[in-house]
Amino acid sequence: MLNEGRDDVVLGIGDDAAILSIPENHHLIQSVDTLVAGVHFPVETTPQDIAYKALAVNLSDMAAMGAEPAWFTLAITLPDDSSAWLDAFSKSLFSLAKKYNVQLIGGDTTNGPLCISITINGFVPAGKALTRNTAQVSDKIYVSGTIGNAALALAAWQGDCLLKDETRSFLNEQLNRPQPQVELGLLLREYASACIDISDGLIADLQHITDNSNVGAAIYFEKIPLSKELKLNLTDEALLLALVLSGGDDYELCFTIPENKQKEFDRVMKEHGISVSCIGEIELRPGVRCFLNNKEIDIQGKGYEHFVD
Amino acid sequence: MLNEGRDDVVLGIGDDAAILSIPENHHLIQSVDTLVAGVHFPVETTPQDIAYKALAVNLSDMAAMGAEPAWFTLAITLPDDSSAWLDAFSKSLFSLAKKYNVQLIGGDTTNGPLCISITINGFVPAGKALTRNTAQVSDKIYVSGTIGNAALALAAWQGDCLLKDETRSFLNEQLNRPQPQVELGLLLREYASACIDISDGLIADLQHITDNSNVGAAIYFEKIPLSKELKLNLTDEALLLALVLSGGDDYELCFTIPENKQKEFDRVMKEHGISVSCIGEIELRPGVRCFLNNKEIDIQGKGYEHFVD
Repeated sequence: MLNEGRDDVVLGIGDDAAILSIPENHHLIQSVDTLVAGVHFPVETTPQDIAYKALAVNLSDMAAMGAEPAWFTLAITLPDDSSAWLDAFSKSLFSLAKKYNVQLIGGDTTNGPLCISITINGFVPAGKALTRNTAQVSDKIYVSGTIGNAALALAAWQGDCLLKDETRSFLNEQLNRPQPQVELGLLLREYASACIDISDGLIADLQHITDNSNVGAAIYFEKIPLSKELKLNLTDEALLLALVLSGGDDYELCFTIPENKQKEFDRVMKEHGISVSCIGEIELRPGVRCFLNNKEIDIQGKGYEHFVD
Repeated sequence: MLNEGRDDVVLGIGDDAAILSIPENHHLIQSVDTLVAGVHFPVETTPQDIAYKALAVNLSDMAAMGAEPAWFTLAITLPDDSSAWLDAFSKSLFSLAKKYNVQLIGGDTTNGPLCISITINGFVPAGKALTRNTAQVSDKIYVSGTIGNAALALAAWQGDCLLKDETRSFLNEQLNRPQPQVELGLLLREYASACIDISDGLIADLQHITDNSNVGAAIYFEKIPLSKELKLNLTDEALLLALVLSGGDDYELCFTIPENKQKEFDRVMKEHGISVSCIGEIELRPGVRCFLNNKEIDIQGKGYEHFVD
């Protein structure tokens, strides 16, 4: 498995380790995410979708840090030597890698139950990384895209609700092929005071920001952007609230924008055609509160719990 | 799980990714290695030994590149939530990490069959990394330490030979607790023309150097350093040859030293008390040849094959 193309890869795959060049005055950003069959994806998921998601969730971590993704290592454990499976996996992986100009620089393929672990690397100008611990009182809270689609797809897959046929493929696409918000992350370097990607659920992830920043938050359910597919399929209000507030796997960004930068930020988003929505604001009082029709609703702060098959 | 202490970790565990600072004019060196239960270690291996080995084999890759190890990410998949197992694993991991001044900067703990994947990072001054593809004709071939101990321990574990009681613990220590040759790797930056760590077997790994450098090699079996424990237990010459030449898992370094640097290099090794042995030389003719009593012996170039339980 090889892909190529980045000038900052001094030596790629084929030695004891890769040799990599970091631009001057930049920090390295690095994280790891593992997907286990039957835990993070249904065992019947296609190799194409598994490969896509394994890299996409890592790219999403780079987006959440405002980092430009660059390279990744891949540790893949496979139950048997199925070259057809691996071919399909690799094609999908490299197609996404190419799209985001990231290069595979190290790999280890081992024999065992299916498990994929990617360590991703990116960089930011020193001091420009987005973190969770720097939100300030009165900052506006934003999310990108629409929220709850992946959770609805998962709920349908688990038999917790029925989907209309015409929306099934849209929602599965949202679950299996989340779009990492890399472009948005790069733009946020100049505007956001804090940022996280929504993997555990909107409330749970926003709470990571408020807890780490020693602040609280108020959000307004009516302002949370929902897809028309979600609205079409979800008539049960309790389930709607649960999936939107506590469902995970959307891989949109949740971030805070200082009030005095809001106008310019909204303009820049329009210029770039990136869909973002202001859903609330940072407050002094600890904890996350959610309002619906001006009434505070009872929210469970818990996020997405991995299903086990 | 946390360890701390490096100034170049701008932000450690706890955000979407770590933020890291690379020294100016240095390259980043990165590689990944996975250990799967029942494939890379017997299922009855203790958590302490598994942790040690998972990090040690990665440190060995840094040594082979002449890199100063710095940080690592850990992806661990665990069959059940055994906090006692994880405590024992973590203590052993962090004890080795502390010894080599490496810091855990990202982790993902998932549920599933036992599997540990570590991506390690280090750095070298730009242009100083040791690679496999730069050996030259007439360079001297060296190995560190003694060769074949891990292979003998494994053979005994698999029932292929009987060990004398007094050597069993020494040999198991060699298999489970290989010493990564980090100090040697750093010194080799000034002397070695090529370097690799011996994980697949002496012949197989030396062949990686010769193939990548478009040269060949002659080595002399009598010059290969053997432990007294190996000599004591192995009276069968065929098995001795097989384990020393094709056994893996020693994690010693195999490297080449230009003839004109040999004297100074030998002196520096003595000064540092590092045991190295010259076992042959690089030749123009492709392939690796091994001589015993001045006769070329038939070697199988194949390396260690992972056992499956």
